[in-house]
Amino acid sequence: MKNKIVEDYRKLFYADSVAVIGATSDFTKLGYYAMFSMLNYNGKVFLVNPHFKELEGRKVYPSISDVPEDVDLAVIVVPAKLVPGILKECAKKGVKGASIITALFKEIGEEGEKLQEEIKSIAEEAGIKIIGPNTIGFANIHRGLNASFNPLFACLRKGNIAVFCQSGGISSILGNMALDENIGISKIASLGNRVNVDFPEILEYLLYDDETDVIALHIEGLSNPRSFLEIARRVVKEKPIVAYKVGKTDINKAAYSHTGALAGDYKLYSAMFKQAGIIQVDSPIELLDAAKALALQPVPAGNRVAVLSQQAGAGLVLIDFCAMNGLTVPPFTDETKKKFEKLLPPYTIRTNPVDLAFAPLPWGRAEAAKLALEDKNIDALIYFQLYFPMMGFPSEELVEFSKKYGKPIVAVLNGPQNTCKEDAAKLEKGGIPVYPTPERGAKALAYLAQYGRILKRFSKR
Amino acid sequence: MKNKIVEDYRKLFYADSVAVIGATSDFTKLGYYAMFSMLNYNGKVFLVNPHFKELEGRKVYPSISDVPEDVDLAVIVVPAKLVPGILKECAKKGVKGASIITALFKEIGEEGEKLQEEIKSIAEEAGIKIIGPNTIGFANIHRGLNASFNPLFACLRKGNIAVFCQSGGISSILGNMALDENIGISKIASLGNRVNVDFPEILEYLLYDDETDVIALHIEGLSNPRSFLEIARRVVKEKPIVAYKVGKTDINKAAYSHTGALAGDYKLYSAMFKQAGIIQVDSPIELLDAAKALALQPVPAGNRVAVLSQQAGAGLVLIDFCAMNGLTVPPFTDETKKKFEKLLPPYTIRTNPVDLAFAPLPWGRAEAAKLALEDKNIDALIYFQLYFPMMGFPSEELVEFSKKYGKPIVAVLNGPQNTCKEDAAKLEKGGIPVYPTPERGAKALAYLAQYGRILKRFSKR
Repeated sequence: MKNKIVEDYRKLFYADSVAVIGATSDFTKLGYYAMFSMLNYNGKVFLVNPHFKELEGRKVYPSISDVPEDVDLAVIVVPAKLVPGILKECAKKGVKGASIITALFKEIGEEGEKLQEEIKSIAEEAGIKIIGPNTIGFANIHRGLNASFNPLFACLRKGNIAVFCQSGGISSILGNMALDENIGISKIASLGNRVNVDFPEILEYLLYDDETDVIALHIEGLSNPRSFLEIARRVVKEKPIVAYKVGKTDINKAAYSHTGALAGDYKLYSAMFKQAGIIQVDSPIELLDAAKALALQPVPAGNRVAVLSQQAGAGLVLIDFCAMNGLTVPPFTDETKKKFEKLLPPYTIRTNPVDLAFAPLPWGRAEAAKLALEDKNIDALIYFQLYFPMMGFPSEELVEFSKKYGKPIVAVLNGPQNTCKEDAAKLEKGGIPVYPTPERGAKALAYLAQYGRILKRFSKR
Repeated sequence: MKNKIVEDYRKLFYADSVAVIGATSDFTKLGYYAMFSMLNYNGKVFLVNPHFKELEGRKVYPSISDVPEDVDLAVIVVPAKLVPGILKECAKKGVKGASIITALFKEIGEEGEKLQEEIKSIAEEAGIKIIGPNTIGFANIHRGLNASFNPLFACLRKGNIAVFCQSGGISSILGNMALDENIGISKIASLGNRVNVDFPEILEYLLYDDETDVIALHIEGLSNPRSFLEIARRVVKEKPIVAYKVGKTDINKAAYSHTGALAGDYKLYSAMFKQAGIIQVDSPIELLDAAKALALQPVPAGNRVAVLSQQAGAGLVLIDFCAMNGLTVPPFTDETKKKFEKLLPPYTIRTNPVDLAFAPLPWGRAEAAKLALEDKNIDALIYFQLYFPMMGFPSEELVEFSKKYGKPIVAVLNGPQNTCKEDAAKLEKGGIPVYPTPERGAKALAYLAQYGRILKRFSKR
């Protein structure tokens, strides 16, 4: 099973040669952007469009049949009614993967649905894996392959988080966030109308994908929840799945679904996700907040968090968001208490949360982190600091401790205009996820702890 | 009443001459940062510390009595036990305002409480308004006066939002956010232990402050909720008050309060806020998200929102967050429907939300906004677009329409690495608040609509 799936998706996600069918010089068209995304690819790229002879200094072929070499993947951006014919040519050419960006299939009703059925049967017969139609496409960051119409996907940092969305717009929002916050991505895609590559197949593939450790999903509605859940239950034992499900309110039930699946009942989805061990988040950005923590840190043994804060006010906000999300902030053991009483002056707050305002500089803050992590009442640590350039930041120590004690650490570093970038990069390189605000940091740790509970539950079976 | 209050606070917030007592060259001390904050002030600045003769090329006076000119405001950063003596000297010198940064008063128990009582009676006798102690201080952005130990406050853009926090750390987080998102601020402060300047007094003052149109508060616990509410009820008829109350969970009740007030019962606070017409938000960053919308836009006549989205997937997220927060996304009138049917092709979604993916470029998106705003079923508009440089953005039209139709518009512009900065600045200059994600934009509009309901409720009395 594994070999078959990995083999099937190889020509899609790791295509050595790609044809962009519908490449154009018209920058109001998606074909322009799809072409642009492929221009720097280090595999072979062929542009196809009967209306051009040359684009961006490259030869343009009238049809894929005219391409003189083998083609693994076709990126298709032509009017919908032309897609079946184009796909037949692709099949003849031996193409095994397609990213069909063209919209106006199943989502527009009967006529489109017929077209979609047509391309489905062509694909099935020829053994072509299709991302789409009605999609932004996909990018495999490790391979440097951007088969989407979002050229920015090419700028993403290589990492171990796979992002699969139903909507292209949401995948772009997440791509932008990953760029801004330097989050490492393995693959990013929108699945669109899901002709023959749907969430269950993708989960199965990602289970075997060596470049992916965490799976982030944006879901509007599932067309086959049963097989999705069945596969998800297997996957979550190996790799965490984080999902953002649109449609918490009834407003989406009444609304259309633009990728051709009706939005289902939110409560039902939540129950299914819970049962399958999928971590459900509350907004698109939480998908990557949670995924980053899961990608970098081990799960905590329990929910008991130490909160260390350079500013007491932020500590209060942190413990509140911890408690709102199922974490506890318990007292330290008597032994630890005594050590904190030695480290910090009597007039400061040495319980949990700990106020670091009066910790001896520069070593006292790292020492406090060490004391907290050594405490047997503590499973994880949140460290908060406002960024003042000259105050320094115990990045190296936190990285060292996180490895030494095997307990997860989440850092919240708040400063303006990217002033924290350098320390944040050091921390994340060392495996400690960094967030800009208390609420995001606390919630990310809560999701990490949730995965710990999921692993325990599934290992008991 | 008005004249008295404005007069009282004038010497604090608009001090022409300031003494920094406890200025130092030691950059591990807050006195260093407090000095740094004042160095570029265009009023008179005097540095005071018996241990230095010169700092940063300026003369340092051994005590405030030695300063040869009048002093309006003293920024005090000396050990707690020295504060009463220093304040007495200030009183003798005729100082009328003080920003007491020094901590370790009421918040550390009996001994500190005694000290705090002492400075309170000195201040009352001499008519000195004190911000603090145990505070970051304050900054009056319009006057260019930064009497805090956060030098970054001096970089804030002048605007009409006043930010008053209980905690200095939270005021810094909000200051950093305002810097990053270019949010205009009138005054920013943390009130700390609130010797004689507490939330009620500040509300009363801000009611008369011409530079403030919106009031944002971070509250841990109120020491005099009754007078706070009484004044708040008067203020909200003129200026909206947005509040973030820490302590949603019981965890904060058990915890200390670092500014000397116990965290109260959250539900009770929520009920009080509701009664007084205060808009309560769920996290620190929502304080400024809501305040920005309130600062820039008129309130909508009702809760009925048109959602226009360049990407359908983001539209679904938007309507979900609208509905979660009390907004509705109703169908257009038949007349408007017909116009949308002319504007957009039949295969696209022309109901509410509207999918702009196939709107004619470049004018079709602005036209869609116009049609939605002209609809009598619609009270407000959310416009979403992913940032693609060559696609353009109808900034000017949105600004024009927002004025023409008198209905609020909120824009959500999502792009990486500040690519949206230019359009966002254009929009905000024209009065349209811009947010980076659907959930933040929808929630900000919901808070704006909430203020509309508050105004209606209070005007009926």
